[in-house]
Amino acid sequence: MTRTPTTQDKFSFGLWTVGWTGRDQFGEASRPALDPWDYLGPLAEAGAWGITFHDDDVVPFGTPDAEREQILTRFKQVADDAGLVIEMVTTNLFSHPVFKDGGFTANDRGVRRFALRKVLRNVDLAAELGAATFVMWGGREGAEYDGAKDVNAALDRYREGIDTVAAYIKEKGYDLRIALEPKPNEPRGDIFLPTVGHALGFIAELEHGDIVGLNPEVGHEQMAALNYTHGIAQALWSGKLFHIDLNGQRSIKYDQDLVFGHGDLLSAFFTVDLLENGFPSGGPTYDGPRHFDYKPSRTEGFDGVWASARANMETYLLLAEKARAYRADPRVQEAFAASGVLELSAPTLSDGESIADLLADRGAFEDYDADAAGARETNFVELNQLAIAHLVG
Amino acid sequence: MTRTPTTQDKFSFGLWTVGWTGRDQFGEASRPALDPWDYLGPLAEAGAWGITFHDDDVVPFGTPDAEREQILTRFKQVADDAGLVIEMVTTNLFSHPVFKDGGFTANDRGVRRFALRKVLRNVDLAAELGAATFVMWGGREGAEYDGAKDVNAALDRYREGIDTVAAYIKEKGYDLRIALEPKPNEPRGDIFLPTVGHALGFIAELEHGDIVGLNPEVGHEQMAALNYTHGIAQALWSGKLFHIDLNGQRSIKYDQDLVFGHGDLLSAFFTVDLLENGFPSGGPTYDGPRHFDYKPSRTEGFDGVWASARANMETYLLLAEKARAYRADPRVQEAFAASGVLELSAPTLSDGESIADLLADRGAFEDYDADAAGARETNFVELNQLAIAHLVG
Amino acid sequence: MTRTPTTQDKFSFGLWTVGWTGRDQFGEASRPALDPWDYLGPLAEAGAWGITFHDDDVVPFGTPDAEREQILTRFKQVADDAGLVIEMVTTNLFSHPVFKDGGFTANDRGVRRFALRKVLRNVDLAAELGAATFVMWGGREGAEYDGAKDVNAALDRYREGIDTVAAYIKEKGYDLRIALEPKPNEPRGDIFLPTVGHALGFIAELEHGDIVGLNPEVGHEQMAALNYTHGIAQALWSGKLFHIDLNGQRSIKYDQDLVFGHGDLLSAFFTVDLLENGFPSGGPTYDGPRHFDYKPSRTEGFDGVWASARANMETYLLLAEKARAYRADPRVQEAFAASGVLELSAPTLSDGESIADLLADRGAFEDYDADAAGARETNFVELNQLAIAHLVG
Amino acid sequence: MTRTPTTQDKFSFGLWTVGWTGRDQFGEASRPALDPWDYLGPLAEAGAWGITFHDDDVVPFGTPDAEREQILTRFKQVADDAGLVIEMVTTNLFSHPVFKDGGFTANDRGVRRFALRKVLRNVDLAAELGAATFVMWGGREGAEYDGAKDVNAALDRYREGIDTVAAYIKEKGYDLRIALEPKPNEPRGDIFLPTVGHALGFIAELEHGDIVGLNPEVGHEQMAALNYTHGIAQALWSGKLFHIDLNGQRSIKYDQDLVFGHGDLLSAFFTVDLLENGFPSGGPTYDGPRHFDYKPSRTEGFDGVWASARANMETYLLLAEKARAYRADPRVQEAFAASGVLELSAPTLSDGESIADLLADRGAFEDYDADAAGARETNFVELNQLAIAHLVG
Repeated sequence: MTRTPTTQDKFSFGLWTVGWTGRDQFGEASRPALDPWDYLGPLAEAGAWGITFHDDDVVPFGTPDAEREQILTRFKQVADDAGLVIEMVTTNLFSHPVFKDGGFTANDRGVRRFALRKVLRNVDLAAELGAATFVMWGGREGAEYDGAKDVNAALDRYREGIDTVAAYIKEKGYDLRIALEPKPNEPRGDIFLPTVGHALGFIAELEHGDIVGLNPEVGHEQMAALNYTHGIAQALWSGKLFHIDLNGQRSIKYDQDLVFGHGDLLSAFFTVDLLENGFPSGGPTYDGPRHFDYKPSRTEGFDGVWASARANMETYLLLAEKARAYRADPRVQEAFAASGVLELSAPTLSDGESIADLLADRGAFEDYDADAAGARETNFVELNQLAIAHLVG
Repeated sequence: MTRTPTTQDKFSFGLWTVGWTGRDQFGEASRPALDPWDYLGPLAEAGAWGITFHDDDVVPFGTPDAEREQILTRFKQVADDAGLVIEMVTTNLFSHPVFKDGGFTANDRGVRRFALRKVLRNVDLAAELGAATFVMWGGREGAEYDGAKDVNAALDRYREGIDTVAAYIKEKGYDLRIALEPKPNEPRGDIFLPTVGHALGFIAELEHGDIVGLNPEVGHEQMAALNYTHGIAQALWSGKLFHIDLNGQRSIKYDQDLVFGHGDLLSAFFTVDLLENGFPSGGPTYDGPRHFDYKPSRTEGFDGVWASARANMETYLLLAEKARAYRADPRVQEAFAASGVLELSAPTLSDGESIADLLADRGAFEDYDADAAGARETNFVELNQLAIAHLVG
Repeated sequence: MTRTPTTQDKFSFGLWTVGWTGRDQFGEASRPALDPWDYLGPLAEAGAWGITFHDDDVVPFGTPDAEREQILTRFKQVADDAGLVIEMVTTNLFSHPVFKDGGFTANDRGVRRFALRKVLRNVDLAAELGAATFVMWGGREGAEYDGAKDVNAALDRYREGIDTVAAYIKEKGYDLRIALEPKPNEPRGDIFLPTVGHALGFIAELEHGDIVGLNPEVGHEQMAALNYTHGIAQALWSGKLFHIDLNGQRSIKYDQDLVFGHGDLLSAFFTVDLLENGFPSGGPTYDGPRHFDYKPSRTEGFDGVWASARANMETYLLLAEKARAYRADPRVQEAFAASGVLELSAPTLSDGESIADLLADRGAFEDYDADAAGARETNFVELNQLAIAHLVG
Repeated sequence: MTRTPTTQDKFSFGLWTVGWTGRDQFGEASRPALDPWDYLGPLAEAGAWGITFHDDDVVPFGTPDAEREQILTRFKQVADDAGLVIEMVTTNLFSHPVFKDGGFTANDRGVRRFALRKVLRNVDLAAELGAATFVMWGGREGAEYDGAKDVNAALDRYREGIDTVAAYIKEKGYDLRIALEPKPNEPRGDIFLPTVGHALGFIAELEHGDIVGLNPEVGHEQMAALNYTHGIAQALWSGKLFHIDLNGQRSIKYDQDLVFGHGDLLSAFFTVDLLENGFPSGGPTYDGPRHFDYKPSRTEGFDGVWASARANMETYLLLAEKARAYRADPRVQEAFAASGVLELSAPTLSDGESIADLLADRGAFEDYDADAAGARETNFVELNQLAIAHLVG
């Protein structure tokens, strides 16, 4: 249907995606858990280039150190043999009840110290395994009840925690960057740093913010009624798009983690268009992994697990092909011009123009025909229909 | 029922609130428009301390300069006579069709220059009238179609625009700060800087960000499924809560602009608790105006307009009274302690503790009893029920 | 790109769609209002087969009878000349302030009587013009405040109103059916009969429910987080899909009224698949008008208006083509079988099987291997990916 | 704080509420599971009158018959000893993987037969235990993918299933009514019968619909942006409010199952007002159990479990007290009159008035002053503020 993925495509998967057993809020597991290394061969075969994991995905919480070493060695060996890059590592601060009120922002200081230690240990592992990115999803950092959390103190502690981890990375000289993953809610009623924006604002307050960026997830932004492509665009604009989580979500509801493109397809098209083709007038670009953070539906058996893994990549490649044709189409370029899309890159003030100059320019205000400008065609709908025609046509 | 508001309460109203004629997306005005000054007396009488307005609320778009001066002089005079402070001024970049694709981020450069001029003129007015805050709601800065806007260029232009205005304020030596007002959507499909977080992240990229902060609105954050109290808490933590817009919203739907407290009442309680009592362990506080940005329902006549204006203040005062009693209640303070609310202000690392020290602390990790910590009572629900009991009891 | 629409396609448009002047909650009109007949020629030229309208779209509220007649005659003549069928007529009970608290459910009895008269007059007009469907969108039937409406009384009055209109249609012998249009909110905080389901439940309580059905709108259901295709499926199953309103909506927010397919594209594909191809195992089908109820974005001039009108039809035709190929693909039919899609039409009880028989069937329960059944592959994701591949590939 | 609940209050709890171990989508259990009977004493002590359960809550799936009998006997005995009424029983068709694609609407016919048998067995149990209501929440009846389900066939099967159960109840002469529980999504992407309305529409198509009604849950309706009080009002109006599920939800997100009143508090007030005081002008009332279907937050230990159970009842009683005072307040009654709330119960047509009479009444239309009516005060905001003042004041 479309070409086979290659390592150049940089497709990677969380081990917890294909490894999800289907246990959800209302039901028991519908698939057995395999050994962690057993997922690697089929993933590589399906075309994946990279693999990522939480510490607890590979080594169960509480495993003694010696056994931990053995497990990790074997996992690394199998990944190497399969040709899979371990591009990102992340820490589970949400499954064990000790984190029921969060990790870095738990009211209980002992929990915070434990969480920090768990993360630092995993930073060492990430560096050892050669990962470039260390994702931090603070899924339990938050509250159900406004009175139960001092949000100012929580943000202080969050900053302390992230800055400590970043300082440690620098101390150790690891070639590793932290990527925060925002989410508005679930499993907590309200999660701190709920959107791309909140995380960007938070990073600006860090001491070591230079190595802290973002890992935005499609569904997480959409759960807050936000436009994912706009979100990663602002992250790029801020120089902070360090990693991405691609998946699918249908409207505002529980976190669905569908296959990429199985949610808002038109939005997925424009996401791929941005990732592959950049902004219309140039600017920062993303060339990191195309990482899928999805869940094979609980209805599926293992055939469905692997079919869904392939579906993520296939959909991405299909959309990429369409997006390239869309940008290459002279009608689209004409429509960009007609719609003023390219005009937006021209500064509002002329080169060297001072505010005084602007104020003196009667053409800009006193003699400006606002009614005529208000009546100008924008051709936005036509431009969008060109996208539809490329996508579906 | 509760005490009469006083000027100490710093209640202020947008002129466009009581002045809204009830014309909505699906219907004609249900109330006549009065002259702008005719709203001032009744507002003052109801207990308002301040008044705010968009340029076009007082002086219709396109009014010749001489007439504009007359109108403004009269408006100022009536406000003075009524004892109303003009605490904030803002610019309308959304009603006239010239702004149909935005002001500072319109694809059309002429529109951007016109918008900038309109704002600069209004900055002069704000300074002249003694306003402390200049709000900017970029309600038309956005898009319906992902392909119709180069978001990177848009953010460049947005930054250029805001920085130009801020530079102008500094040049002129005005004692004025800019407050950005985020909104996720409506009237555009997706608005840039959709939440408190996105605006904080944006401000971090400004040259003159020191005089740029936020004016978060209750309903706007709630339209993105976000917790308003958390939002203003992060703004406070970032030193950026310059102004607030209080109103009511019921769930995720069109922008309702209900009376404050007529939406999510429990959330309103905790908002007032934060504004009046600060964070449980101290930290930054807000002492600016309690500004209402609501709309008297279209069903109402002028009796309803004034009843609704009073209802905003009455609800605020009722909640403030309850919030004070809540914090003063020894059972609440005990519950704070039991829930660890106050423990969160203790740094995770001890004073002078290095990362190496933390790594060497076996009690923090190797010997930590995670299961016991996971089984600890948090008493969060009980604490929340105390709030309910205070609020309703 | 795709073929030109023909009258066989039964594409129709509300006059208020292309006739929308772009005046929204926050802005003035960006396009002039033409005379009602001036929209007809271009619509027909673009490929429309039918036209629909609210009384007030053609004849302004309050127009004297003689003038009303002249206007209607001219409108009908131009429609005839353009070859446009007037397939549906509807009544505006929402723009004039008299309806600020609703029409049939206004607290004020005088308003209710006035609303009923306005509707009855329009029923006569609909019949006279040969419309087959009379749509009723009760956009103002609702409340912002739970205390301000006796919902039981409101539903009594709603039933009285609809039954009166239906009785009148029968009395007069008009060949006309009523189609209720649900919407969850906007312009009211909560609208009565908020979804397809509520309207179905309401119709079941009518005396003359036999000629009352539904006109579900894509965006309206999606504003309540509901699946539109499921909605029209239940309406079909209940024999009540009398008319449809196609448009586009992106997530839960204000009513966007985008071009069909410019919202949730994958959902639009399955909607068209159902409308064109019916249910997989047969059952009730819809062969009424493909009616578009959208708004050309306020950014557009008249070029954009007509481009957007064409875009609705083009997208529908593109999706119809894809949907036909999807169903015709043997791999899809195989996947239907593998996924059990066709097995669902087999009754759960065998032909003639009594409950006692079922209870006696040990294979159904006592000897049933639930674990094995739980482990069965469903291939749902693969099937969905086939749809994606057809749609995008 | 408020009075102790009594059996007259008819408070009941699902066994799965206090029995929830805190295992959620992202985390392990934070509390141990007790034996089912161990929850009964504390519940009774806290003031509960009734208890309800899913079959699998008491007897694990797959338990042999003899052991099942023993467990049930003991459970019944302990409930009796505690003075708890088993007022409702329900069947778990969602936890075991066999139901991963639904029960009555699973594509797999074997699953459907198994589900039916599981339900019928539980109907016998419900009758034996003296329950009055048999709730059916079809949480897995639905789909993630539109192509994977023939919705017409699904509704046929759903009807067949419910009618079979209802027929069995009648055959056996059980004094039991079925109450369907709608939910829009989670755990399925889209659940069939997603709202109160859809279930009402469905019941109208049943053969044995006379003994089938609704069990609406606060959070479920709110997850679809719907007004819960309106929902139960329409159910009452249709004679179908057989049971209720009270809990709390904050905006549109995952199913939170908070304590009643810990979500939208103002809405909870009006829900209690309707349940306790009925509609303003009379009409159908609800006198069934006040059933709580909530989850003690995962952060809590057993102290929190029991505190949260008490909190549900306390909040209900607080709101009931406030609601009674609200209705008894002469100012509220005056406001009802001023707002026309009571006028809505007057039929729109006069007693004996024909349509012809209405058409002949010039005062209703030709001579009606619509502008004056549109300018009338409604006092809705003032009425709502009275509710706020009662609730908070």
